[in-house]
Amino acid sequence: MLPMSQKDNWPHVVIIGGGFAGINAAKALARAPVRITVIDRKNHHTFQPLLYQVALAVLSPAEIASPIRSVLRRCRNVQVLLGEVTGFDLQNRRVQAKGEGPGKSYEISYDYLVVAAGVTHAYFGHPEWEHLAPGLKTIEDATEIRRRVLLAFENAEREAIAHARQGSLNFVVIGAGPTGVELAGAISDISKRHMRDDFRAIDPAQARVILLEGGPRVLPTFPEDLSASARKQLEEMGVEVRTNALVTGIEPGSVMVGGETIPAAVVLWGAGVAASSLGKLLGVPTDRAGRVLVQPDLSVPGHPEVFVAGDLAAAKMADSRFVPGVAPAAIQMGRFVARQIKRSLEGEPREQFAYIDRGTLATIGRSKAVADLGRLHFSGYLAWMAWLFIHILFLIGFRNRFMVMAEWAWDYITYNHSARLITGEREDNPRK
Amino acid sequence: MLPMSQKDNWPHVVIIGGGFAGINAAKALARAPVRITVIDRKNHHTFQPLLYQVALAVLSPAEIASPIRSVLRRCRNVQVLLGEVTGFDLQNRRVQAKGEGPGKSYEISYDYLVVAAGVTHAYFGHPEWEHLAPGLKTIEDATEIRRRVLLAFENAEREAIAHARQGSLNFVVIGAGPTGVELAGAISDISKRHMRDDFRAIDPAQARVILLEGGPRVLPTFPEDLSASARKQLEEMGVEVRTNALVTGIEPGSVMVGGETIPAAVVLWGAGVAASSLGKLLGVPTDRAGRVLVQPDLSVPGHPEVFVAGDLAAAKMADSRFVPGVAPAAIQMGRFVARQIKRSLEGEPREQFAYIDRGTLATIGRSKAVADLGRLHFSGYLAWMAWLFIHILFLIGFRNRFMVMAEWAWDYITYNHSARLITGEREDNPRK
Repeated sequence: MLPMSQKDNWPHVVIIGGGFAGINAAKALARAPVRITVIDRKNHHTFQPLLYQVALAVLSPAEIASPIRSVLRRCRNVQVLLGEVTGFDLQNRRVQAKGEGPGKSYEISYDYLVVAAGVTHAYFGHPEWEHLAPGLKTIEDATEIRRRVLLAFENAEREAIAHARQGSLNFVVIGAGPTGVELAGAISDISKRHMRDDFRAIDPAQARVILLEGGPRVLPTFPEDLSASARKQLEEMGVEVRTNALVTGIEPGSVMVGGETIPAAVVLWGAGVAASSLGKLLGVPTDRAGRVLVQPDLSVPGHPEVFVAGDLAAAKMADSRFVPGVAPAAIQMGRFVARQIKRSLEGEPREQFAYIDRGTLATIGRSKAVADLGRLHFSGYLAWMAWLFIHILFLIGFRNRFMVMAEWAWDYITYNHSARLITGEREDNPRK
Repeated sequence: MLPMSQKDNWPHVVIIGGGFAGINAAKALARAPVRITVIDRKNHHTFQPLLYQVALAVLSPAEIASPIRSVLRRCRNVQVLLGEVTGFDLQNRRVQAKGEGPGKSYEISYDYLVVAAGVTHAYFGHPEWEHLAPGLKTIEDATEIRRRVLLAFENAEREAIAHARQGSLNFVVIGAGPTGVELAGAISDISKRHMRDDFRAIDPAQARVILLEGGPRVLPTFPEDLSASARKQLEEMGVEVRTNALVTGIEPGSVMVGGETIPAAVVLWGAGVAASSLGKLLGVPTDRAGRVLVQPDLSVPGHPEVFVAGDLAAAKMADSRFVPGVAPAAIQMGRFVARQIKRSLEGEPREQFAYIDRGTLATIGRSKAVADLGRLHFSGYLAWMAWLFIHILFLIGFRNRFMVMAEWAWDYITYNHSARLITGEREDNPRK
C-alpha cells in the first residue's frame, strides 16, 4: 500500500507548509528524481493577497483557496499530508507530526527538509487581544472578520428598529501596514457603496472607519511620497487616519490610545506578524520575531540539508536589509531551494539567494492604490489597475481564475456582494 | 431614525423565517399597503435543494445562499432583522426576540404574523446522536459534513503513509429519503471520480458507501416503481443499500443495526425532521412532529391574523393527506398567505389553500435521478436533466445564477471540485 515503491530509493524531500514557498518548491521539484511529502495544517493553499476580499464579503473562500492536493495533483512524485508538525530531530533527520484525533502522532524521515511554515499574528505581549481584535492570515480569520463586520451592521439596524437608538458603527483597524490599509479601505468601500440599499433604519455610509498606526506614517515599508499618497487616498474615502497612535488597551467595545477611549463596534488587527513557532522548534538561531537566520543558500547553520523558505526565513540582502515578507519573495525562495536540492543531487555547489524586487503594490480601495516600482512611483487608478492585472495574472495555476475574474467584473458593474454570509455560531448561543 | 415614518399607520406584517415561505410572502406583499418585518436567525436565505452540493464540496456556500437583505432589497416596505424569536404573545399581538449578545431582547408588535420557521433534524429521542451523525439543514451543517467527509480521506491517506495500514473509508448514511439518497450518491460520485488523482497511498474509489433505511424501500414518499429504480441506480453507483435496517446505536466510529456493528469513518443523518420549536411556542395544537395544525386558510385556530406557512405548517389536502414538506409547497404557501392578508385588508373573505403538485424529482448522482410527474414516471439521465434544468430555473432571483451554471458546467467538463476546503477548527486543537 505504500506509494511509489519502485522509487523508494529516491531521496525524500519533506516540505512543511503549503503556502507560496512550499507549493513552488514542490512544483519546481516535480520532475527531479526525488520523493516529496508536503505537510500542512490546512488542506488548502490560500492566495493571501486576496484574503481581505473574503473578509469583506467580496469573494468566497473557495475563490481564493484551493486544496493543496489539487494544486499538486499533476506532480506524481508529491504526496500531501494534512498534519501539524510538532517537532524536529535534525540529527536523525526526522520530523514529528500529528494528525486529527488523539494518538495520531507519527514520524517522517527526510533527506532534505524545507520549512516554509510562514508567519502568524503578533500581539506584542497581549495574547488576550487576539480574541478582541482578530488578524487576517487564514480563511477562518477571514470568515470571522466577515461575521463581525456584517454583524455590526445587523446590530446597529436592530438597535435603531427595536430600541429607536443609534448603535455604534465604529470600525477600528489597528496597524497601517498593507493589511490594515486594505481592511480600512474595504470597510469604507462596502459601507458607502455595497450596503447602500440594504438597510432601512440606519445609513451604512455613516460608518466611521478609524485606522490607528503607532508609527509616523501609513504603509511604513513604502517610500514616503507613497505613504503620503496612501493617506490622502484613505482620507478621500472617509477613513480617519491617525498616526503616532499607539494602542495601549483593547476591551470589548473600545480601544484605548494613550488616555483616550475610542468606542468600537469591531476591532481588527493588522499591526504585526510573528514567525511560526516551528522556527524556534528547529533549535537554530532566530531573530527577535522568531524568524530563522538562514545562510546565504537559505539553509540553516550546520545543516545544509535543512532549508527555511518564505516569511519564516530571515534572509539578508546585499544591502544587509532583510528580504521582505511578500508573496514574490516566498515564491522566489521556494524555487531557489528546489534548485539547490537539485544541485546537491548533481554534486554542484550551492548558490546564494538574491531577491529580485519587481516592485510593490498596495491596494487601498476601489480605484485606489499605490505602486512602488523602484524609481517609478504612482498612485490612484493606474496603480489600482496594475494591482488588479497583476493579481489576476498571479492567480494562474488556480483553477478558479476565471471565476474570480467573473466575480470581480460582476461586482464592479453592480456594486453587489455575493458572499455576504454570516456563518458560524452565535457567541452567546452555542449549538452544542 | 425609525423607518418609513410617513407610513407608520400601515398595518405591520411580521414574518418569521427567511426560507422559501417567508421570502415569497414578503415579496408578494411588496406592493401592498403594509409595513413588513422579516426576522431570521441567519442573515441569509439558503437554497436548500442544493445544500448537499455544498456538503460534498461541489458548490461554495455563497453560490446557494444569499443575504436576505439582498434578496428583499427592492421591496422598500420590508425591513430585515437578524434575531432569534423567543416567544409569542398572541393576545397582545407581540413577538419576543433577541439579537446577539446579552440583554439584547426586544419586542415587536404586529397586525399580521406569518410564522415560517421551518424544520430541523429529528433524532428520535437520541439527542446524543446529533454530534455523531450531523444532518443537513443549514450552511453550517453543510460545511461540517464537508469537513468530515474530506477529513476521512485525509486520515486514510495519513494512516497509509505514516503507519502503512489501511484506514477506514466507510461512509454510513442513515435514512434513504431525498437527502440521504443525495448524500449517498454524491459521496460515491466524488470518491470514484473527483478525487481520483489526488491521493497517492489510498484509492478513493475503494470508499464504501452504506445507505441504511429503516423502512422497506428508498425514497418512501415516491411511487414504488421509482423507489425500485432509485435503488437500482444507487447500486449501479456502488452504494450498498440496506432497507429494513433500523439503527439502534451510534458511537464514534461505528453504527449499530440490530446486533451488527458497522465501522464508519463518517456517519450522516438523513432520517427525519422535526418542526421548529416555534410551533410549540405558539401555544396552538400541533401534530406529533410539532407541526402546527392550521386552518384551511393556513391561519391558526382562534387567530385569523396569525398564519403558519412552509414546512412548519401541517396543512391537510383534499384527500386528507398533509401537504408535503417540499420547496414548491413552501413557496405556494408563502404567496397564499400574502394574498389572504391583502384580502383581509380589502374586507374580502379568506380562501382555502390548495397545493398544486407539479411533480417531484429526486437526484441520485451524476446522470441519475427519478421523476414523479403524476402518471408519468421516469428515471436516469432524462430525469437528471429535468432536475438540473428545474433547479437552474429555480435559482432565478438569486444573483449568482450564472455563477452556479458556470461552476456546474466547469465541474461537468473537468470532474473538478473547487470548493474542497476543510475549514473550521480541529476538534482536538481549539484555537482559543
